[in-house]
Amino acid sequence: MLVVQKYGGSSVADPERIRRVAGRVAAVREEGHDIAVVVSAMGDTTDDLISLVKEITDSPSDREMDMLLSTGEQVSIALLAMAIRERGFPVISLTGPQAGIATDGVHTKARILNIDTSRLRKEFSQGNIVVVAGFQGIDQESSDITTLGRGGSDTTAVALAAALQADLCEIYTDVDGVYTTDPRIVPEARKLNVISYEEMLELANLGAAVLHPRAVEMAMNYKMPLHVRSSFNTNPGTLVKEEENLEKELLVTGVACDHNVAKIGLFNVMDKPGIAFTIFKALADEKINVDMIIQSAMRDERNDISFTCSEGDLKKALAVVDGLQADIGADGYTYSDSVAKVSIVGAGMISNPGVAAKMFEALYGAGINLEMISTSEIRISCVIRDEDAEKAVKALHKIFDLA
Amino acid sequence: MLVVQKYGGSSVADPERIRRVAGRVAAVREEGHDIAVVVSAMGDTTDDLISLVKEITDSPSDREMDMLLSTGEQVSIALLAMAIRERGFPVISLTGPQAGIATDGVHTKARILNIDTSRLRKEFSQGNIVVVAGFQGIDQESSDITTLGRGGSDTTAVALAAALQADLCEIYTDVDGVYTTDPRIVPEARKLNVISYEEMLELANLGAAVLHPRAVEMAMNYKMPLHVRSSFNTNPGTLVKEEENLEKELLVTGVACDHNVAKIGLFNVMDKPGIAFTIFKALADEKINVDMIIQSAMRDERNDISFTCSEGDLKKALAVVDGLQADIGADGYTYSDSVAKVSIVGAGMISNPGVAAKMFEALYGAGINLEMISTSEIRISCVIRDEDAEKAVKALHKIFDLA
Repeated sequence: MLVVQKYGGSSVADPERIRRVAGRVAAVREEGHDIAVVVSAMGDTTDDLISLVKEITDSPSDREMDMLLSTGEQVSIALLAMAIRERGFPVISLTGPQAGIATDGVHTKARILNIDTSRLRKEFSQGNIVVVAGFQGIDQESSDITTLGRGGSDTTAVALAAALQADLCEIYTDVDGVYTTDPRIVPEARKLNVISYEEMLELANLGAAVLHPRAVEMAMNYKMPLHVRSSFNTNPGTLVKEEENLEKELLVTGVACDHNVAKIGLFNVMDKPGIAFTIFKALADEKINVDMIIQSAMRDERNDISFTCSEGDLKKALAVVDGLQADIGADGYTYSDSVAKVSIVGAGMISNPGVAAKMFEALYGAGINLEMISTSEIRISCVIRDEDAEKAVKALHKIFDLA
Repeated sequence: MLVVQKYGGSSVADPERIRRVAGRVAAVREEGHDIAVVVSAMGDTTDDLISLVKEITDSPSDREMDMLLSTGEQVSIALLAMAIRERGFPVISLTGPQAGIATDGVHTKARILNIDTSRLRKEFSQGNIVVVAGFQGIDQESSDITTLGRGGSDTTAVALAAALQADLCEIYTDVDGVYTTDPRIVPEARKLNVISYEEMLELANLGAAVLHPRAVEMAMNYKMPLHVRSSFNTNPGTLVKEEENLEKELLVTGVACDHNVAKIGLFNVMDKPGIAFTIFKALADEKINVDMIIQSAMRDERNDISFTCSEGDLKKALAVVDGLQADIGADGYTYSDSVAKVSIVGAGMISNPGVAAKMFEALYGAGINLEMISTSEIRISCVIRDEDAEKAVKALHKIFDLA
């Protein structure tokens, strides 16, 4: 069997934990399997590096950020390889570039283009356990190191599993699996044994930080089952796989909350074709990921257009909006980063009317004002004030009987 | 003009110092010169990484050590590039592999085989300042990252300067230049304005830590003048260049002291051809650098053979000696790592008899016992007890009027 495992930063935060991970890897090896282990940077490494940058510049180049941050994973792979070897197993560490992970050239947010698995297969054939640096790759045109951005290590693991046609892809994290909502907010939250890609994708997109949406999307495309579990115990976690029963047991599978949300509203934009394109093309050109987009009903041939992005992109997004204001004939704009997005997710929603009404009822009952609403087939999201987020999650978890 | 500068770990120990280095680099740039800057890892980074390793294993693989330690320089180049860009200059950082530095595959002690300067020249032609990671390269056969071992960043700088046919190679350090001896031990020590490659090579080999001998050797081979100076002020430092006057002003140029010395003595080795070869081939095979070798006069067809190596190699050297003892017919061996090597260096020695006698007189006068003696044309070294080293340096500095 060929197994890919991924360990996040908290699982390799110190030498003691690294040794523990080595033990887990060794156990798989002793069962006779080939194994590739993807690791993130140790605990706070990335934050420590970023705080050094802040003492030097407010606007570092993305290329140099990648050069800097990719060292974090390189430290982890070397130490984990040493710990595995200390247990007597043949092992080799590979950086993203050495593992053949080719990306585009969009620094700090690169996308994997393809994986040349020849080096990995060579190492397997020589009996080596392979430890691969997550989060990073190489832009082959420039030979520059790239990083994949948030959740990049999950993406590395799933992409490797797909490229190697692995039998199993285990994502180790610091929680027991995927929960109906954040157990730190709602103590009655329940671990899910199985969840479909689609539901996981919605939850992931909604800031349930267990798995990155890009990783889920890739797993879905390649039909690669993921096992999300804790690196601190051997309990079974949550299996993320294809939907099998059309009739879902649960109407709503989970409640998610994302605090990393900023909102921008444009007033009285001209109502003519191409306006939305102009706005969102300009944002896309700056590599800003826009999440929700809402256009209100027409009044006097003018529209209000609102959208959300991550708080980190707010400054860049405002610069874009500033530059566009005249072109799109907007009267002005407003913005806020003290908002949050709460969402309910469930494949059962499709065939059950009234779920949205029930959600709004719960939020109304908790005295929470809704600033934006957006829906998909299996998700309903509301932007609310940041300070109401916890209250909202509790109310929703309760009304949908998730405990 | 094309300038190569090298800044050591203490010169880039924190963001404040990195900003200062950026200022120096910018000043050279403003004069219109092309510039490549080689940097070491920040201050204690390497030691911090090594202490992590110690919590994981006592015998890390050399390949994984290189994977680990090469991250230190990668952090420095990214931060320095950011600091230079913050001053408004176009700049790009390159790892050793990206800078085209190809080495052999001897991990932790790799030698540079050749430098492909095409990427560097491309960056110059685009107007970029180039910041290069010292100490590292790539083994092209395996695509593995290698490190050059101690003094590797000096070697990187000189090799780059030679490959680029630079007009100037400046080695920035935390002292003002090359001194007649360590000013921390002898306050009267004097800075030398000029020193020949040969003298510098002897001093460098003797543990005067300002410049690594490999770097001096390479500079000598390529006739690349080096300017050794402080990164904390703008005083002129010491110029290391070809000997010009055959008649040296000074009989003895400097006194050096190396504490990183271990001594191994083999008793009653068989006196027959090939014995020395057997011993030192076996040590070389383990990549142990042997420094002094002394074979005493024959007694009863048996010899005593002593040699020194670095303290770090002692354990490996003892293992070799252990394995050889029977083959070479030795009665036993002794070893010590509480010894030091003091040396006097000077091109003037060649034509002045009696220098050695004067040295032994000074050491005898200070009540110091000599355990081993070795000489070259321009150097005399004595192995003495570690605790006598400071006293010896002071006595030698005085007797040769170096103050």
